[in-house]
Amino acid sequence: MPILNKDMTLCISLAARPSNLGTRFHNYLYEEFGLNYIYKAFAPVDLANAIAGVRGLGIRGCAVSMPYKEDVIALIDEMDASASAIDSVNTIVNNAGHLTAYNTDYSAVQRLLAEHAVPRNYSVILRGSGGMAKAVAAALHDAGFAQGTIVARNEGTGRALAALYGYDWAPEVGPLTADLIVNVTPVGMTGGAASAETSFLPETIAGARLVFDVVATPAETPLILAAQALGKPVITGAEVVALQAEEQFFLYTGIRPTPDQVHRASAFSRKP
Amino acid sequence: MPILNKDMTLCISLAARPSNLGTRFHNYLYEEFGLNYIYKAFAPVDLANAIAGVRGLGIRGCAVSMPYKEDVIALIDEMDASASAIDSVNTIVNNAGHLTAYNTDYSAVQRLLAEHAVPRNYSVILRGSGGMAKAVAAALHDAGFAQGTIVARNEGTGRALAALYGYDWAPEVGPLTADLIVNVTPVGMTGGAASAETSFLPETIAGARLVFDVVATPAETPLILAAQALGKPVITGAEVVALQAEEQFFLYTGIRPTPDQVHRASAFSRKP
Repeated sequence: MPILNKDMTLCISLAARPSNLGTRFHNYLYEEFGLNYIYKAFAPVDLANAIAGVRGLGIRGCAVSMPYKEDVIALIDEMDASASAIDSVNTIVNNAGHLTAYNTDYSAVQRLLAEHAVPRNYSVILRGSGGMAKAVAAALHDAGFAQGTIVARNEGTGRALAALYGYDWAPEVGPLTADLIVNVTPVGMTGGAASAETSFLPETIAGARLVFDVVATPAETPLILAAQALGKPVITGAEVVALQAEEQFFLYTGIRPTPDQVHRASAFSRKP
Repeated sequence: MPILNKDMTLCISLAARPSNLGTRFHNYLYEEFGLNYIYKAFAPVDLANAIAGVRGLGIRGCAVSMPYKEDVIALIDEMDASASAIDSVNTIVNNAGHLTAYNTDYSAVQRLLAEHAVPRNYSVILRGSGGMAKAVAAALHDAGFAQGTIVARNEGTGRALAALYGYDWAPEVGPLTADLIVNVTPVGMTGGAASAETSFLPETIAGARLVFDVVATPAETPLILAAQALGKPVITGAEVVALQAEEQFFLYTGIRPTPDQVHRASAFSRKP
């Protein structure tokens, strides 16, 4: 890292339980491009004061994670379409005191569906009904995926999310399958109680044409490994994280890194 | 510098025109001690929002410079004696959301008077009547220096400061002298219009037993050089800056660096 100096532009993240991914990803690219920027994650004490600090300290950019993605809306000045599409914010850009909110998870999922050339007539099963599930469901819907089922044990949030995008709701996947199956629950996440489990039964995975796991740590979740063992194409949470971080980097700096640079920054961010 | 990580404790400074001294001094010692800390200067957009950010982001420490040293008093929770002695704050420590304000300039000047073993019966001429002049006058007064003259062209602030500590006031030094002469104006500062001047006539310097220049950049001001040419002992602004920064470092981290470490950090902070 360069020797720190007073003129560095600061970008931050706000999350109740920050990971090191953003801090390492962005600082890697700042160094790569020789930018006088610095990035650091924060677990805020108080969200309103933290956003006041973004204004008062002239912090250029701010990633927003759980559980602040909705609460932050009342504190910013303008919603980009990516954030207003799902009433959820994961990125704030400070242009001379004017705070604009984005959702780069939504943008990243849309871009991954295009880059992987996923046929729009694929049927979809999506497990989960939280904030990230909303981003993925919205991205699928807005990309033209018409036939989908939201699977969530919580009937309230599950039915609501399904209704929002014209999808069906089911409390359990059971043995059903679809062309595209998407896990947007924490199942498979490192360290969790369910870290060795998958969100889908083996026959559901076997029946799918494409398997998408939004869990980012580890990059190779039990679901991704099971799909790869069957020769299925996959989209990983690591890809989502890297693409959404690339988009944040572009919004903060105006610079679009190459795919190779994003790949290296992402690999660096995941080193132990 | 270490690779940045999410868990680093942040300390900052707030000044309308930040220098690089604090950023380099503190980061040097963080690296020296292997502390997971980071320090960066800010020119705040708005003081109240910046202090809200100190609370909301859990920023551990905050140096306060011109022009915020008085305005910040309304925004903190508790005044240490060093700050309440002069109603001026240059340091804030955040203990789990409770902000305590200090004035380490005041403490540093008191410590320098003791370390240089300046006799308390020395007569004093002090030029200046701003915030830092108040800190120096208070430190002199509270250390027992009873016979002093505040020299300031501004009669209002000059007389008020003199009255506060039982000193005389004069609009000009002229050919007068004293045992201890102290410059607390910007005269002699690098880059200023008066950077080649001194605050005192040659006969005043010649008549002094000790010359103290609070100007910190350059370390060797015209006044310090003139005093040294006459074989006079001196106290420099660089010493004040280093000692007050050492005190901040101690308040933020609980660690007291050695004089050698302070010397090296100070030298590093002044490298171009």
